[in-house]
Amino acid sequence: MSISRPTVRAAADAPFLVAARGGLPSRRPVWIMRQAGRYLPEYRAVRQTRTFLQMCYDADAATEVTLQPIRRYGLDAAILFTDLLVPVPPMGIELAFDPAPVLKRTVRTRADVDALRVPDPERDFAPMLATAAQVRAALSPDVALIGFVGAPFTVACYLVEGKGSKNWDLARRLLHGEPATFDALLAKITDALLPLVQALADAGCDAVQVFDSWAGVLAAGDYVKRCAPWTERLLAAARQRGAIAIDYVNGATQHVAAMADSCAEVLAVDWRSDLGFFRRQVPATKALQGNLDPTALFASEADLRSQVRACCDAAGPAGHVFNLGHGVLPETDPDQVRIAVDEARRAWP
Amino acid sequence: MSISRPTVRAAADAPFLVAARGGLPSRRPVWIMRQAGRYLPEYRAVRQTRTFLQMCYDADAATEVTLQPIRRYGLDAAILFTDLLVPVPPMGIELAFDPAPVLKRTVRTRADVDALRVPDPERDFAPMLATAAQVRAALSPDVALIGFVGAPFTVACYLVEGKGSKNWDLARRLLHGEPATFDALLAKITDALLPLVQALADAGCDAVQVFDSWAGVLAAGDYVKRCAPWTERLLAAARQRGAIAIDYVNGATQHVAAMADSCAEVLAVDWRSDLGFFRRQVPATKALQGNLDPTALFASEADLRSQVRACCDAAGPAGHVFNLGHGVLPETDPDQVRIAVDEARRAWP
Repeated sequence: MSISRPTVRAAADAPFLVAARGGLPSRRPVWIMRQAGRYLPEYRAVRQTRTFLQMCYDADAATEVTLQPIRRYGLDAAILFTDLLVPVPPMGIELAFDPAPVLKRTVRTRADVDALRVPDPERDFAPMLATAAQVRAALSPDVALIGFVGAPFTVACYLVEGKGSKNWDLARRLLHGEPATFDALLAKITDALLPLVQALADAGCDAVQVFDSWAGVLAAGDYVKRCAPWTERLLAAARQRGAIAIDYVNGATQHVAAMADSCAEVLAVDWRSDLGFFRRQVPATKALQGNLDPTALFASEADLRSQVRACCDAAGPAGHVFNLGHGVLPETDPDQVRIAVDEARRAWP
Repeated sequence: MSISRPTVRAAADAPFLVAARGGLPSRRPVWIMRQAGRYLPEYRAVRQTRTFLQMCYDADAATEVTLQPIRRYGLDAAILFTDLLVPVPPMGIELAFDPAPVLKRTVRTRADVDALRVPDPERDFAPMLATAAQVRAALSPDVALIGFVGAPFTVACYLVEGKGSKNWDLARRLLHGEPATFDALLAKITDALLPLVQALADAGCDAVQVFDSWAGVLAAGDYVKRCAPWTERLLAAARQRGAIAIDYVNGATQHVAAMADSCAEVLAVDWRSDLGFFRRQVPATKALQGNLDPTALFASEADLRSQVRACCDAAGPAGHVFNLGHGVLPETDPDQVRIAVDEARRAWP
């Protein structure tokens, strides 16, 4: 299958792109992590007749749910509906969502690592790339399209443990106990994801976000030496293809120095950190994205508005993309999201 | 039952006490979080015929397992064998370990909070206080005894959710969504734990560590305003009774400013943070405790020694108590713990 090359892209003055390059856009750009999700009734309607993975592999369904929050809230960026584990089956490991991810095998030895396959994007990720092209064609030029992949460490966590874990002790034990195997695993995952990052950019994504959802369990030194260099290769690949690189590290505070050194234009900050602290610690050229606590969407309207304002004030007007610091929770009232979006745009010079 | 008042205490020049007060002791003091635990065969032998909670309530068994790691490794501090949820049943909620804690009821409304009882330490915690007195009497004066309680936020997490959780979303939703109920809950837990802190100090504990195991899920601002003030009352109570106050916050990096402002003499740092960063951010009068990654105990001897040395070098010789940054894992080889203890003591001016 040949991937259609999009003729449209977000315009250079789209609020998301201006802010991502550190500038002062016409309004504060807003998008919401996991904005295409179960908190929306229109999402649940599409989801009702399909499994989560079926939706990821169905370009029309994925396009529809990707566009839903743009229609509802007029957001400044769409994020491709997919999952950071979608590359795992083409690497040779069966995957189910129950509803949390469960892998049929784990990867703990050098032989396990060597047995992993490197997917061919145009063959193995055709639905995802088709979704990107369709969504980009449907979006107006003032809205950016964001594609994403998991960071090598985060994907490694699932491959090593086979399912979710609180502290990912087995993954950290492999890092310390079998360093050569751990490094080979991250190299293999990077080999698998790098062509996907390039293909996403080529298929129409204006930006690629690398999700390091589990880097928060790592000591600062281990992250810098053993994990960040692999993430860096994915971020650099996005930039080389002309896409904005966004580095999201969940549990970011101890990794602020490493994030400051990354080549990403945008650092996406989890909800735990103070954005003012990040502003002081990272180069002024870097944009910040985030970082309201998703549970703040359960507060009263006055409290919610006050917290959104505090977040925007800490980030400042230029080079800030308002977002949550983690995915929106399924139990969230969609009207509370509207209030947060409204307040983020209201706080404008 | 009347609690026997101990006639012995750790000596003023015990390495732990000197370091805890910011000084340069005769050797670098070492203890290991969860040192009385399943990684030790002598612990498993005692545990075989009892449940975990039975051991907490049996002063002789608790005394024995508290002393085991002191005998094996010659550590500088014993930590009372108990659990931070031991106060929950006397507050009126049944508790089981399966093996993770499961509460019979949750606490989510104002009525639930009002129904919680405030325990009477000498009646409800008699075995724990008897253990403290027995252990203190058995220890030599150069070894300190540490008692502990959970931080109000961490105990609240369990009361709200009823069992473990990855991000404690329900607890954070209560913080934002029902602020008066959340505050009343933390006030009630503080009322319950404050007399226990005092009783532990009176029963022979040279130090009391407050474990905020789950504060890492909190935004920095929420921790400062809504949670740290309650922890502070417990730390102050320990100090008022002449015990060293140790503030352990797991996921501490975003809370470093709050920890720097606490009245604790010792800040116990989880494994994620760089101790050098803490040294630069907190007053020089405060001692630091920590913070090797527990999974570093699965590394080769050379790697393990190098990581212990890096940790000790970052902390400096004065005012440092070497420890892990979290509890030792059950699968740990006890000989690896011996290597870490040896290396921490070797790195000495």
